[in-house]
Amino acid sequence: MTIEGKEDRRGRRIRLGMVGGGRDAFIGGVHRMASRLDDHFELVAGCFSSTAEKSLASGRDLGLADDRIYGDFNAMARREARLKEGIEAVAIVTPNHIHLTAAKPFLERGIHVICDKPLTSTLPDARKLVGLAEKSEALFVLTHNYTGYPMIRHARAMVAAGDIGTVRLVQVEYPQDWLTVETEATGHKQAEWRTDPARSGAGGSTGDIGTHAFNLASFVSGLTLKELAADLDSFVPGRRVDDNAHVLLRFEGGAKGMLWCSQVAPGHENGLRLRVYGTAGGLEWAQEDPNYLWHSPFGEPRRRLTRAGVGAGPESGRMSRIPAGHPEGYLEGFANIYSEAAAAIRARQNGEATPPEVVFPTVRDGLAGVAFVDACVRSSRRNGAWVTLAI
Amino acid sequence: MTIEGKEDRRGRRIRLGMVGGGRDAFIGGVHRMASRLDDHFELVAGCFSSTAEKSLASGRDLGLADDRIYGDFNAMARREARLKEGIEAVAIVTPNHIHLTAAKPFLERGIHVICDKPLTSTLPDARKLVGLAEKSEALFVLTHNYTGYPMIRHARAMVAAGDIGTVRLVQVEYPQDWLTVETEATGHKQAEWRTDPARSGAGGSTGDIGTHAFNLASFVSGLTLKELAADLDSFVPGRRVDDNAHVLLRFEGGAKGMLWCSQVAPGHENGLRLRVYGTAGGLEWAQEDPNYLWHSPFGEPRRRLTRAGVGAGPESGRMSRIPAGHPEGYLEGFANIYSEAAAAIRARQNGEATPPEVVFPTVRDGLAGVAFVDACVRSSRRNGAWVTLAI
Amino acid sequence: MTIEGKEDRRGRRIRLGMVGGGRDAFIGGVHRMASRLDDHFELVAGCFSSTAEKSLASGRDLGLADDRIYGDFNAMARREARLKEGIEAVAIVTPNHIHLTAAKPFLERGIHVICDKPLTSTLPDARKLVGLAEKSEALFVLTHNYTGYPMIRHARAMVAAGDIGTVRLVQVEYPQDWLTVETEATGHKQAEWRTDPARSGAGGSTGDIGTHAFNLASFVSGLTLKELAADLDSFVPGRRVDDNAHVLLRFEGGAKGMLWCSQVAPGHENGLRLRVYGTAGGLEWAQEDPNYLWHSPFGEPRRRLTRAGVGAGPESGRMSRIPAGHPEGYLEGFANIYSEAAAAIRARQNGEATPPEVVFPTVRDGLAGVAFVDACVRSSRRNGAWVTLAI
Amino acid sequence: MTIEGKEDRRGRRIRLGMVGGGRDAFIGGVHRMASRLDDHFELVAGCFSSTAEKSLASGRDLGLADDRIYGDFNAMARREARLKEGIEAVAIVTPNHIHLTAAKPFLERGIHVICDKPLTSTLPDARKLVGLAEKSEALFVLTHNYTGYPMIRHARAMVAAGDIGTVRLVQVEYPQDWLTVETEATGHKQAEWRTDPARSGAGGSTGDIGTHAFNLASFVSGLTLKELAADLDSFVPGRRVDDNAHVLLRFEGGAKGMLWCSQVAPGHENGLRLRVYGTAGGLEWAQEDPNYLWHSPFGEPRRRLTRAGVGAGPESGRMSRIPAGHPEGYLEGFANIYSEAAAAIRARQNGEATPPEVVFPTVRDGLAGVAFVDACVRSSRRNGAWVTLAI
Repeated sequence: MTIEGKEDRRGRRIRLGMVGGGRDAFIGGVHRMASRLDDHFELVAGCFSSTAEKSLASGRDLGLADDRIYGDFNAMARREARLKEGIEAVAIVTPNHIHLTAAKPFLERGIHVICDKPLTSTLPDARKLVGLAEKSEALFVLTHNYTGYPMIRHARAMVAAGDIGTVRLVQVEYPQDWLTVETEATGHKQAEWRTDPARSGAGGSTGDIGTHAFNLASFVSGLTLKELAADLDSFVPGRRVDDNAHVLLRFEGGAKGMLWCSQVAPGHENGLRLRVYGTAGGLEWAQEDPNYLWHSPFGEPRRRLTRAGVGAGPESGRMSRIPAGHPEGYLEGFANIYSEAAAAIRARQNGEATPPEVVFPTVRDGLAGVAFVDACVRSSRRNGAWVTLAI
Repeated sequence: MTIEGKEDRRGRRIRLGMVGGGRDAFIGGVHRMASRLDDHFELVAGCFSSTAEKSLASGRDLGLADDRIYGDFNAMARREARLKEGIEAVAIVTPNHIHLTAAKPFLERGIHVICDKPLTSTLPDARKLVGLAEKSEALFVLTHNYTGYPMIRHARAMVAAGDIGTVRLVQVEYPQDWLTVETEATGHKQAEWRTDPARSGAGGSTGDIGTHAFNLASFVSGLTLKELAADLDSFVPGRRVDDNAHVLLRFEGGAKGMLWCSQVAPGHENGLRLRVYGTAGGLEWAQEDPNYLWHSPFGEPRRRLTRAGVGAGPESGRMSRIPAGHPEGYLEGFANIYSEAAAAIRARQNGEATPPEVVFPTVRDGLAGVAFVDACVRSSRRNGAWVTLAI
Repeated sequence: MTIEGKEDRRGRRIRLGMVGGGRDAFIGGVHRMASRLDDHFELVAGCFSSTAEKSLASGRDLGLADDRIYGDFNAMARREARLKEGIEAVAIVTPNHIHLTAAKPFLERGIHVICDKPLTSTLPDARKLVGLAEKSEALFVLTHNYTGYPMIRHARAMVAAGDIGTVRLVQVEYPQDWLTVETEATGHKQAEWRTDPARSGAGGSTGDIGTHAFNLASFVSGLTLKELAADLDSFVPGRRVDDNAHVLLRFEGGAKGMLWCSQVAPGHENGLRLRVYGTAGGLEWAQEDPNYLWHSPFGEPRRRLTRAGVGAGPESGRMSRIPAGHPEGYLEGFANIYSEAAAAIRARQNGEATPPEVVFPTVRDGLAGVAFVDACVRSSRRNGAWVTLAI
Repeated sequence: MTIEGKEDRRGRRIRLGMVGGGRDAFIGGVHRMASRLDDHFELVAGCFSSTAEKSLASGRDLGLADDRIYGDFNAMARREARLKEGIEAVAIVTPNHIHLTAAKPFLERGIHVICDKPLTSTLPDARKLVGLAEKSEALFVLTHNYTGYPMIRHARAMVAAGDIGTVRLVQVEYPQDWLTVETEATGHKQAEWRTDPARSGAGGSTGDIGTHAFNLASFVSGLTLKELAADLDSFVPGRRVDDNAHVLLRFEGGAKGMLWCSQVAPGHENGLRLRVYGTAGGLEWAQEDPNYLWHSPFGEPRRRLTRAGVGAGPESGRMSRIPAGHPEGYLEGFANIYSEAAAAIRARQNGEATPPEVVFPTVRDGLAGVAFVDACVRSSRRNGAWVTLAI
């Protein structure tokens, strides 16, 4: 064990803008904290609301200059692209159905995009965004933030190194309980838009948290989903999107899996949990206790690996700030995505390739997520028939 | 909290015989310990092997008189039925495919049967056994032993009392790792017969542990399965039965569920775990830590109920022997089935009905278990189509 | 992993008597279950109460013949010693202050004694009992039952083998909460005698549970206590014995430790927990989750060893009955003391020495426990001065 | 449950300087991250090393202007105090023996001081610093960061509200393992100064982590220590300060406690754990799993309260940024001290009193900590005699 900290930023901060995330929003504040923690970014502009006054008020709260606060993201993209000290990257933190239109003007101007998930609310939109991103000179980073947890990085490295042999099974779940009752009828803003198919997309729990579970399972196992069979429910009367999903998974190469996501499971806050089993061992990780990774080599006792502790390798180490036993959490994992983005942006600005150790979810991962939701909905409508992702 | 013990036996012991369970067997010894713990039974006769000499040696190990040790269970049933002090009950602890023929002669003579699970290795056999049992004057008790755990009794009582509202979700799993490699090729006796369809039945993991998971889910939730969709695998090359099963569940009344059983999940010994979620709360229980029941009333903090502790009700109390904080385990849970059997036998001998609080798995539960395995196999062969239990 | 059971008894049962343990007692029932589990003993006689009618009623409950039920333990010892099929061993399960006088007549007649702890209520009594036991041809087994837990055996073997290097620290605690309020004033029989210095001894929590903690620490660490400093309290007004003890420990050779026992710590049922740290690793075990032993080799990840699981050695294996993942509990650990006693008795009856692997707490361990209580009381009266055990 | 974020900063950032925390230091980086997270501070100046070149390099790493980087903290204080946009607060993150001299010039100029713990390396220094701080117009904030954890705030509020009745017992421990071997001889910079009495103070583990444990116990229980008895050891040969301490505690009013801190306990990273028991309930919290607080009302089941979850009150809420189930960690807790400091500084700048809900450790808490170390050393030298704190 050592008592050592992570290296701080070297050099100037990247100028960041934001679309969405005004007063009363949730994820915008998370993005701001995440962008600040390692000091790679400085928020200098934003379009925090489509209502100009609201945007102005929110921007002033954050200490921005009035002339960098916008009521229209297209105007923001146009002007910032022309400014000498305009933004170099933008965080898109609006509801899902806005992601495509909000990202477009920035991508077209070469401004790097850091976008919240799921990628879009519809599959056609997702495809369009892939097209735009891949045509753009700018980077596109999707904040599937759980991939930023250090012990998830370590788990991924272990699987890739063959430490658990050939993967046979992937069990992933993400239960919550906040929609056990009809929260959306109580004026709860987050519940409202997240259960509105027009804003959230055809999937409810599948889009909001199922995509996280699916992404994490893919990220750690390194496997590609071949087909799925889903049974979706809306348990709460009147709810317009699924609030529970039971999904069977078949991966390329023969591995199998199960995915459960739910917003009606009392006792669970953010119970994302991943288990991967191979011919030579098993791994288990839970988001609510993210500093631990349980490793069970077949035929040996279960081991508790800790973030930055003995047995945690370099993939975990470069995502860590403080010594083992001092827990890092959700914001640190989220910040790791921002730090990866910063590293990639700086490499790009220096005309270099992204360093091989720098890893972040891409627009293609986002497409896979939206296709996952689409496949769940299609399968469930066909009474749980096996379907493939329409990627 | 109190420091108080459970009442001991009152009155004479019930005379018990055993079929199966000779040297090198596993579950026979468990049944013997379970039958002894509360002192309701005395083992006085047995047919421990179909080879007379082996049976004799095993019986002598156990201190039985030579004339009560048999090489043929039919002969045993005939003679014991005629003896003045012959057995009153018999434990059937052979491999699954023998259960029917072994139970038959005893049932026909009114000797109570305590039978290991699964009920039989085939569905037709199971139906025959139901017929025999229901025609007999004798009781038929199936040792789905996990239903004997005190906190499972408490969970069941809570669900029945509406403490978690209307049940929406049942998540149950039973992972093991002992067949991660081809253990059956190493001369391991238990692995051999449990992976041999002729002895074990068409289901491997589904029969051996999936039936336990299914039974426990039904027992606690009080729900009846309507249909299931299963994806079964034999991951280990050459294995003739499933060693992993992913199953989607639909219950009468609209509740949904997932069942996972596996014998190839490194790190798991006997990881039976049940979670039930309703409109008003959730429950969680794990077999490896059986003295705890986690209760999450919706909108209140999670609570840890302990066996015989504050908050554990009478259903748990009558299954407990020692104070809270002194763990009871697998054998005590198993013994509880024997104690329930004893109570039912004594009531029957006294011409009374089984007391309402006495609960044990029946031959019908056994039929449901075999039908569950059959349905899993049928569904999986039809690429995971939804099927109903052929009961 | 294997699915294999423990070998059953070979040969006839040892005839057991009991002193104490009538209706309403607690520990007598535990001894009876423990003696039955592995089938090495058969209870055939007893003096369950000093009131003849109560003793008779209790004995009949247990199915004993009337002529083997006594109202006077001296008469019982005399008659049983003369019977051809008289008892070979006796369990002493009375309150502490009776242990000496109850054990005496049996020891003098060569009848093996299995005695509950603490050894006696006073130090002079303990010394007398040591003298009697060491003069007798009979064995004396003290039921410090926690030493019978398989993973405690494994921990002891690891320390002895040097797996954690030289021991530096021993942290042991045994918190309970059942005397948080003045339970003894509510007619609670167990609380009454356990807080009565005349029956329990000068120590309250120190005698009832501190002795267990001290015994377990010594058993696993292999260390001899050199001196202690204690701060005892009776937090509940009117209580006549300590209900909380904070004790500093110094062992021969330089290791240090802390012992905490409490009966006024809300939230704890039987929270006995032992941690031992050496130059090369640490061990942790908790009685409420006894199937796990946590091993932290210095510089390597923490490992969870499980009873009968991979990594658990022969010392744990011979104390286990069922496979890993099927929890054994308090009664099984208690039964292990009885099985060790049976092995020692059988060896003695065969004119052989006790096999080296057979281990049980002795009358000397009992003396050390009573001296521990005495030292705690003396130190606390002298404001926590360091004192040595008066052994 | 809600998905809501914490309010962001309103208004401009406070200008922050730093003394210490150059390249290779540990805690400086932690302070910087903590100061950034909630955006209340902007680091604009620093004296990162007493060697001018090193300080310059470190400051440039952090993006500071050259003219705000100093090689002498006295010069820094003088100049910054005169600058129109000079620092308003300074973070002191040097080794302990420099705290007094580093804080002095800033306090004398009314620049608020945020100082790492322990307050000083000697008791006389601590008293001087109290005098300086209390004479100054500036605030003095001591970063006993564990007091910033939300669930610690909640625990403190529960105790203050009488939720666990009158406190009887405080059990606190802080085991680590990083000095199990002679790490200070390996060139490990942190180990070197922390085991050097000239830099660290007379206490080793007592100063480094024992002060944290003592502070936390006092903070949550609200109790004042009356006297202590300590047994200190330096287990590693050649070590010049204690690496393990066993301490008995007596509080004003009759409560008792135990404190254990160790740097030689293999398997522990930062195992700070606090348990408080009263007449009506118990509380338990562990730093490595800081989002949980276990509450055991006497006579009711144990409950797991979660940060920002149901049952967590406003004291926890105002220290939280993200929803329950998304873990916050060490940096967030540390940042809470900075946010409290910001609130106090802003109130002071506005001529207002510190709002009553704003709580942070003060210079007096720092003095108590140093006096605690002093008392431990004195008691241990007197063979564990009871001593009082020399405050």
